Amino acid sequence: MAPRTHIVGAGLIGASLGIGLAAEGWTVTIEDNDPEAERLARSIGAGGTPTGDAPELVIVAVPPSAAAAVVAAALGRYPDAVVTDVASVKAPIAAAAEATGASSRYVGSHPMAGREVSGGLGAQGDLFKARPWVLCPNGATPEAIATVALVPEALQCDVVTMEAAAHDAAVARVSHAPQVAASAVAAALGILDADDVALAGQGLRDVTRIAASLPGMWADIARLNRKHLIDSLDHIIADLEEVREADDIGEALTDLIDRGRFEVARIPGKHGGATRDWTPVTVIVPDTPGQLLRLLQHTAAEDVNVEDIAIEHSPRQPVGLTTLYVLPTHAAALVAALERHGWEIAAS
Amino acid sequence: MAPRTHIVGAGLIGASLGIGLAAEGWTVTIEDNDPEAERLARSIGAGGTPTGDAPELVIVAVPPSAAAAVVAAALGRYPDAVVTDVASVKAPIAAAAEATGASSRYVGSHPMAGREVSGGLGAQGDLFKARPWVLCPNGATPEAIATVALVPEALQCDVVTMEAAAHDAAVARVSHAPQVAASAVAAALGILDADDVALAGQGLRDVTRIAASLPGMWADIARLNRKHLIDSLDHIIADLEEVREADDIGEALTDLIDRGRFEVARIPGKHGGATRDWTPVTVIVPDTPGQLLRLLQHTAAEDVNVEDIAIEHSPRQPVGLTTLYVLPTHAAALVAALERHGWEIAAS
Repeated sequence: MAPRTHIVGAGLIGASLGIGLAAEGWTVTIEDNDPEAERLARSIGAGGTPTGDAPELVIVAVPPSAAAAVVAAALGRYPDAVVTDVASVKAPIAAAAEATGASSRYVGSHPMAGREVSGGLGAQGDLFKARPWVLCPNGATPEAIATVALVPEALQCDVVTMEAAAHDAAVARVSHAPQVAASAVAAALGILDADDVALAGQGLRDVTRIAASLPGMWADIARLNRKHLIDSLDHIIADLEEVREADDIGEALTDLIDRGRFEVARIPGKHGGATRDWTPVTVIVPDTPGQLLRLLQHTAAEDVNVEDIAIEHSPRQPVGLTTLYVLPTHAAALVAALERHGWEIAAS
Repeated sequence: MAPRTHIVGAGLIGASLGIGLAAEGWTVTIEDNDPEAERLARSIGAGGTPTGDAPELVIVAVPPSAAAAVVAAALGRYPDAVVTDVASVKAPIAAAAEATGASSRYVGSHPMAGREVSGGLGAQGDLFKARPWVLCPNGATPEAIATVALVPEALQCDVVTMEAAAHDAAVARVSHAPQVAASAVAAALGILDADDVALAGQGLRDVTRIAASLPGMWADIARLNRKHLIDSLDHIIADLEEVREADDIGEALTDLIDRGRFEVARIPGKHGGATRDWTPVTVIVPDTPGQLLRLLQHTAAEDVNVEDIAIEHSPRQPVGLTTLYVLPTHAAALVAALERHGWEIAAS
């Protein structure tokens, strides 16, 4: 049975959880410090007004900097409820729960839905679908863990369980430090004039894509995960220094690239497996509506599944390069078929 | 009139140039130190055997580490020819040309075709089409510059002209340092076990995509562009240190992210303009053949042009998230139309 659920915080995450769980038939109430946000969330079906019935599950969906205090307050205010939160750093909140003496009823959550919007207006019930949802049980009882796990199960998330400290160390490496590094690579462009920046290729665009993120949440995250973030930055700085200081910079870079390649191969690609060795097929595509569709029609006619796709627009040219990533066994036949249809295949 | 052209070096770049120029009706000869590579290049139409007629243009397409010596030799061997080369670092080669006293006949080239293959077998005549081609005239005569410029014009490249030192400083920032940083971010994953790495999202995949590059050419590039690469790395290291050392890490990161955002906005997107503010529309797509095609059919039916596309496979789930980037004015109608067709739109 779905637990009677109360959500504290009616921003993007809280309101999305409310809509998603209500759609699954859960009884959900929601509140927010901000009366306007609260009213909006209730009007879009993210939860009702709390009644006399005490909740069985409380989900704290407030900004990371406020999560520890609100979780501790919720453990006191609802002495029979299981409490979780959704902040992207877990150890400081687990510690606050521990300090209340009620941490057997607290399980940390980190739903990894990385959209760059905020506020209840952007809420959608399927925000979390098919995304990882990390559970950090720490000292919780099996019953409390099972109760919180009902949420990602109802929302069809990919549940991963780990301790809070391990979670924080991991996200520092896979998320927080890469964000800082991407911003530093972007910031280093500052000495260049516009003509120089025009030499940028797809590599730079990939590396710096997340550098376009807004800083608000990241400042909170950096403060809460300072130790692990600094450890990660130290690792990166040490590797950059090693290249920088080397007697033979070529040899030092070869060593770093080799180590990086080993790790990149461990980043999961499709369906939890290691990144596949897909074969890129790069096609020169006129930059007019409908061309991408035509390309995929010709691809589908060959029964070739497109595993990934990348579009590279060409500065000052009316064409772009579209790369289809396909299984190696499909590549040659696909190239032949596309050429038959008149497509220009670029070298790849 | 196309100059009688001789290519020295029959690897991917040299052979591709030969095929591309021959296809435009140029008279091309090609040679390589390696008789097997030379034979292959000639057999695939990348150029004929040199005759008694001295070339008017010599293109040196050897590995970066050898380019300076081969350019100097070519200036001596062909006293009436204009000489260019295709190495991705330009100042050391310009200096070698200068030292011969014949630099009025030398113009550096950097065709920016960044595919991860090598060898003449991968050669294709349109490797450079729609890509930037940098010309570094330095001390060359206008006639020499005009002769070399015929090559990127024939191959429909996007020609950019700048001095060798400015080129090397720019590519250190837009290409070489981002490569090193991406490898360092990837290498920092080395302390994580497989479960931790599974928390990786699209952000990490973007940042580390180029970290999968083979180190061979990069070692050469780092040695040749050592000073500018170190300058760039120092800039990145200083920014990372500033975050790492800050009394308030949140404030320091906010400052870095703000500076990075400003620079990211300067990276050209489509047709030489600044990156557009495209609106992402994220769709939950079953991971079976033909679904992407269906999605684009429904999109095209609305007369919406897809400016960019990103596919995110979900670990351990039979669905993926596909994000279509469209003009802001098209987004709402597209969402409505896709929902009519039964697509689940994820929050974006």
